[in-house]
Amino acid sequence: MTLTDRLPAARLRRYRQLAQKKFRRSARLCLVEGLRLVREALGSDWTIEAVLVSEALLGKGTADDLLRLASSRGAAVYRMTEREMDELSDTVTAQGILAVASWREYSLHDILNPEGPMLVVALDGVGDPGNVGTIVRICDWFRADGLLLDSSSVEVHNPKVLRGSMGGVFRVPVIGGVDLPAVLGEMKAAGATVFSTVPEGGESVESVEPPARSVIVLGSEAHGVSPEVVALVDRTVSIPRYGGAESLNVAVACGIVLAAIRAKLP
Amino acid sequence: MTLTDRLPAARLRRYRQLAQKKFRRSARLCLVEGLRLVREALGSDWTIEAVLVSEALLGKGTADDLLRLASSRGAAVYRMTEREMDELSDTVTAQGILAVASWREYSLHDILNPEGPMLVVALDGVGDPGNVGTIVRICDWFRADGLLLDSSSVEVHNPKVLRGSMGGVFRVPVIGGVDLPAVLGEMKAAGATVFSTVPEGGESVESVEPPARSVIVLGSEAHGVSPEVVALVDRTVSIPRYGGAESLNVAVACGIVLAAIRAKLP
Repeated sequence: MTLTDRLPAARLRRYRQLAQKKFRRSARLCLVEGLRLVREALGSDWTIEAVLVSEALLGKGTADDLLRLASSRGAAVYRMTEREMDELSDTVTAQGILAVASWREYSLHDILNPEGPMLVVALDGVGDPGNVGTIVRICDWFRADGLLLDSSSVEVHNPKVLRGSMGGVFRVPVIGGVDLPAVLGEMKAAGATVFSTVPEGGESVESVEPPARSVIVLGSEAHGVSPEVVALVDRTVSIPRYGGAESLNVAVACGIVLAAIRAKLP
Repeated sequence: MTLTDRLPAARLRRYRQLAQKKFRRSARLCLVEGLRLVREALGSDWTIEAVLVSEALLGKGTADDLLRLASSRGAAVYRMTEREMDELSDTVTAQGILAVASWREYSLHDILNPEGPMLVVALDGVGDPGNVGTIVRICDWFRADGLLLDSSSVEVHNPKVLRGSMGGVFRVPVIGGVDLPAVLGEMKAAGATVFSTVPEGGESVESVEPPARSVIVLGSEAHGVSPEVVALVDRTVSIPRYGGAESLNVAVACGIVLAAIRAKLP
């Protein structure tokens, strides 16, 4: 093992393309950035193709430990200049370390635990990567059994989503590009109750009594839940409003609803 | 009234400085951007010095209504080129309308309602403007009696905070630059109980029974609440964790705690 292999130019070109969703999708690879996320990726069930480190970070203890761990897991390790790192980084100040990772794929079967209680979150048209990342983190905290993203929501392998999830993407089963009406139909057939949040008039989140198997649908702040999904909703839930705000941020609403419902599940 | 006065160059230079905190503080002015926020500012008890509109937006119905409202409220109205607007705008795509506004100042006395119940949020070292904006929006939704920001938290007149608050800054009494230990001492003397959130080991947010007068202190995600503030905390509250995440986003935690506590206040 040598830590000093230079990243070949052809690989750099290929990895640079992973900034774009279409290339992430065709290569089934994404870029995981920063010491913390790379460490979590190496401890997860994702496949790590390579770890890339900037020359400035080489020889620093924390990074070297990670590089040894990467090698022992069969990942290639490459050094690169800081300028090359800046080209790959999604952040203004690159952290100097990136993993090229192939995510674990989940099927609905993985989420639809047939026996016990089930708590799933589904997003309908939530396009802001900061919000989706925060929602993955919330699902991780409350141990949601899965997160479904419809095809108009931002994809989970977007670098801002990965970062905002604070490692939640490695633990929460996420299925993206979902045909939400079809999948909700399957979940209802498997005994799940579909909730959606509404600004007012739903059951109060403080007193709602959820069944053992629940799906919570959250729509975009601007457009709410789409009509095809509304048609499948069994129960609506509202967060009581006391003041002048028209709405809550979708990730904040997700946190409030999950906190209340999780506490009441068997 | 003429809608077509050009913004004088000296004013443009002065308003451009409002991107910086020190100039906002010395001029006691800030920039409020976009149709929605400008409309809310004109309906609030803030003083509007001027409304600036880009030539592209002039003659459009919605903007013209706002400009008439601005004039009737005694604000100056100026047109400017799109390039000048881009210089003033904090956003990548300028919305074409800005208000130059002087905020209402609150004192602790405004917040310390001496008779009835009281719910106040205090931030200790929360530096991310997106989080602080979202917390103002949450305080607006749950009608918190006030929001205190210590001097190491981002200031509320930062353009990203204003935008993220979705107009909440015009309704929630916010006091910035606060010496938190001193102010919490005053609030305790006025009968308030100081809560802080802790990652684990506090009273569960689902079962906490708050007194009628409560202050909720939230620290930064990285550093938590500072020791001088911890010394003043009466009770701690935790959001039960079920999964693998190390922490929740501070705005999400604020939403969960306020939802639970607000529901139980008299």
